[in-house]
Amino acid sequence: MSIYIDPAVAASLRGFEMPEKLGFGTVMAPVMFRAVCQDGCWSQGELVPYAPLALDPAAKVLHYAQSCFEGMKAYRTQAGGVSLFRPERNAARMAHSAARLCMPPVPEALFMDGVRTVTAYCANLVPATSGESLYLRPFLFGTQADLSVSASTSYEFYVIASPSEAYHAGNMRLWVEREDSRAALGGTGDAKVGGNYAASLRSVARLKERGYDQSLWLNPGNRNTVDELSGMNFFAVINGELHTPALSGSILEGVTRDSLIDLARDMGYTVHERAIDIDELLGQVAEGSCDEAFACGTAAIVSPISLFGDGGREYPLAKAPGPVAERLRQMLLDIQEGRAEDKFGWMHPVEVVSID
Amino acid sequence: MSIYIDPAVAASLRGFEMPEKLGFGTVMAPVMFRAVCQDGCWSQGELVPYAPLALDPAAKVLHYAQSCFEGMKAYRTQAGGVSLFRPERNAARMAHSAARLCMPPVPEALFMDGVRTVTAYCANLVPATSGESLYLRPFLFGTQADLSVSASTSYEFYVIASPSEAYHAGNMRLWVEREDSRAALGGTGDAKVGGNYAASLRSVARLKERGYDQSLWLNPGNRNTVDELSGMNFFAVINGELHTPALSGSILEGVTRDSLIDLARDMGYTVHERAIDIDELLGQVAEGSCDEAFACGTAAIVSPISLFGDGGREYPLAKAPGPVAERLRQMLLDIQEGRAEDKFGWMHPVEVVSID
Repeated sequence: MSIYIDPAVAASLRGFEMPEKLGFGTVMAPVMFRAVCQDGCWSQGELVPYAPLALDPAAKVLHYAQSCFEGMKAYRTQAGGVSLFRPERNAARMAHSAARLCMPPVPEALFMDGVRTVTAYCANLVPATSGESLYLRPFLFGTQADLSVSASTSYEFYVIASPSEAYHAGNMRLWVEREDSRAALGGTGDAKVGGNYAASLRSVARLKERGYDQSLWLNPGNRNTVDELSGMNFFAVINGELHTPALSGSILEGVTRDSLIDLARDMGYTVHERAIDIDELLGQVAEGSCDEAFACGTAAIVSPISLFGDGGREYPLAKAPGPVAERLRQMLLDIQEGRAEDKFGWMHPVEVVSID
Repeated sequence: MSIYIDPAVAASLRGFEMPEKLGFGTVMAPVMFRAVCQDGCWSQGELVPYAPLALDPAAKVLHYAQSCFEGMKAYRTQAGGVSLFRPERNAARMAHSAARLCMPPVPEALFMDGVRTVTAYCANLVPATSGESLYLRPFLFGTQADLSVSASTSYEFYVIASPSEAYHAGNMRLWVEREDSRAALGGTGDAKVGGNYAASLRSVARLKERGYDQSLWLNPGNRNTVDELSGMNFFAVINGELHTPALSGSILEGVTRDSLIDLARDMGYTVHERAIDIDELLGQVAEGSCDEAFACGTAAIVSPISLFGDGGREYPLAKAPGPVAERLRQMLLDIQEGRAEDKFGWMHPVEVVSID
C-alpha cells in the first residue's frame, strides 16, 4: 500500500516506544482517527497524532453525557497479518447507541475507514502473544457549546487504540446486585453509552469492599431475572447445556455473546436464550445441576465465574474454570488468531501500512 | 474589594461585549473558575479566561459519563447588589451527585469560592431586567486517561456562567411517558448526572413530533406514579391544595421545589408531598378537581402546564397559567430580586469586584 503519509503522523509513529508492561487500555497508540459532524453532515476522516482534544467548557458531552462508544480488537494472526473481528457488528451497534441518544449515526463506511486506518498504521503495535491485541475504541460525542438540555448540533468521532494484554478477570466472584440498577426499563441498557457505566461504579465499589469482583445485574423491570455484568454478558452451563439471558431491552447485545452462541451450537452444544430467574439459578448452583458459569466480552473474551454471593449466602460453582468455558474461549481465540478456519466469515484482514 | 486581578482575566472581562439577544445558556461569560483534584487532593481554585479545555481522548468522562453538574442563578437585586440563591443547597447536592458516581466531593468551601468568585467578577454581566439572571453552571468530571471501567483518579471542577433571559417554557403541553425512563430504580435519578439527561432526549424528540413540549416521567419502579419532568419538579393544585411527588429515590431534589414548599406553606397553602398516581391525577383533571399544574426549576422558576397527553387522550387543565403558580412565581422572584423580605434567609449577597 503506497500512500501519502502525513509527516506528523509518521513522526508520531516513529517516535513511539512500546512499553514492556502493557496492561489493558492504559498504553495509547500515538495516532488516532478523527471526523466531525455539523448539522448532520460528516467530514471525511483523517489520521492525526494522538493529542489532547480541545473542548468548549459548555460542550454537551460534559454536562449531558451525550456520548457512546465501542470496544473491539485487532489480532495478529498466525500468518503474520492483522485482522479485525466482526467490525461491521460494532458499526451497527454504534449506530443503534447513537440513535438512542439522538446522535447522528457514524456512517458505516466512515466507521470502517476509522478502524481500518488506525489498525493499518498501528500494525506494528499489535502484540504477537496469544490473547494480546490492539484494543480499538471508537467513540462519538456531542460538542455544541450550549447549556440547554437538547441534542447537540455538532459531534466528533474518534478511533483511538491501545496495545493491550489479555484482560485477565481471573475466576470472578459475582455479587447479585439487588439494590442498584445499571439501566432502567425503557432506559439505555441496550446501548453502549456512558451513563450505564457511570451508574455501575457505586455497586462495584461496594462489592469490592465485601470481597467480590463484579456485580451481576438483574432486569430493572422484574428485578428477578439475570441481565448481565458491567460490560460483559452472562452464560451458565446447566446439565451440560448453555443458557444465556435473552435480549431483554436492558442487555447490551454483545458481539462476543453472539459469536459464542453460534460457535457453541456449531460445536454441538444446546444453547438456550431465555429469561433466567436468579433464585432458580442459585438453587441449581446449590444442588449442582449448574456446575459452571462464565462471562464474555471483547476485553476479557471468556471469564470464568467461581461464585455467586447473594445477601448472606455464597453459591460456589463446582467447576471454575469449567471445561465448556475453556473450550469456547480457545476455539474463539483460535479463529481470531488464525489458527482455526474462519468458517463463519468473522475475520476482516487489514492491509498494513508500513512507515519506515 | 481591592485584590490582585490576573491581567488575562481582566483583559477577558474588559473585552467582553454583551450581545443584545441573550437566550438561555448560550452566551458564555468570559471567565471561569477552575480547580483540579488528584488522588483525592484538591488544588486551590483560580479564575481564568473562558477557553477550550484540553482533554485526553481517553479521559473517563468521554467514555463513562463520570460527570455531574449544578444549575443556579445570581440575581441583581432591587438595591443594586448581586445575590446568589441558596448556594449551599447546590453545594450539598453536588456532593451527593459526586458520591453516586464515586467522584470525590467538591469541598463546600471550594464550591462556594467558585460560585462567589465568578459572580463577583461577572457582576456587570448580571442582567437588570426582572426574571433575567446570571446562570451559573458548576460541573465536575473525571479526567484520567484510562479505558478501564473504574472511577477516575483525577478530576476537574469548573464554574462557568451565562447571562440569561428568563427561561420561558410557556404553557407546557406534557406527554405522559409510559415507555422510556430517565433513570432506574436504584439508578441515578436523585443525582444531577449527565446520564439522566442523555436518556431523556429520545422521549422529548418523539413527543415534540406529536406536538408536546416535555415528558412527564413516571416512577421507574411502579411506572404509575409521577416523578418529574426532565430537569423540573412537578406540582398539581387539587381542590385548592398543593400536591407534589414525595422524593422517591428517582426524583431530583430541586432547590426551587423545596423553596416553593416552604413559601406556599408560609402563604397559607396546604402542601402534600406524596406518591401521585398518574391515572388518579388525570381523572381529577378530567372532572375538574385538579384545575392547575406547574413545573418548577432553577432555569424556568415556575412554568404552567396547560395539558397532559396520554395515549390517545388529552387532559387540559382549566387554568393555565393558574393563579397559584402565578402567585408563587411572583413571590419567589420578589425574594430573589430583593423586593420582598428574605424571611427564610435564602439570599447570599456577593461582594462585587470591579474591573476598570
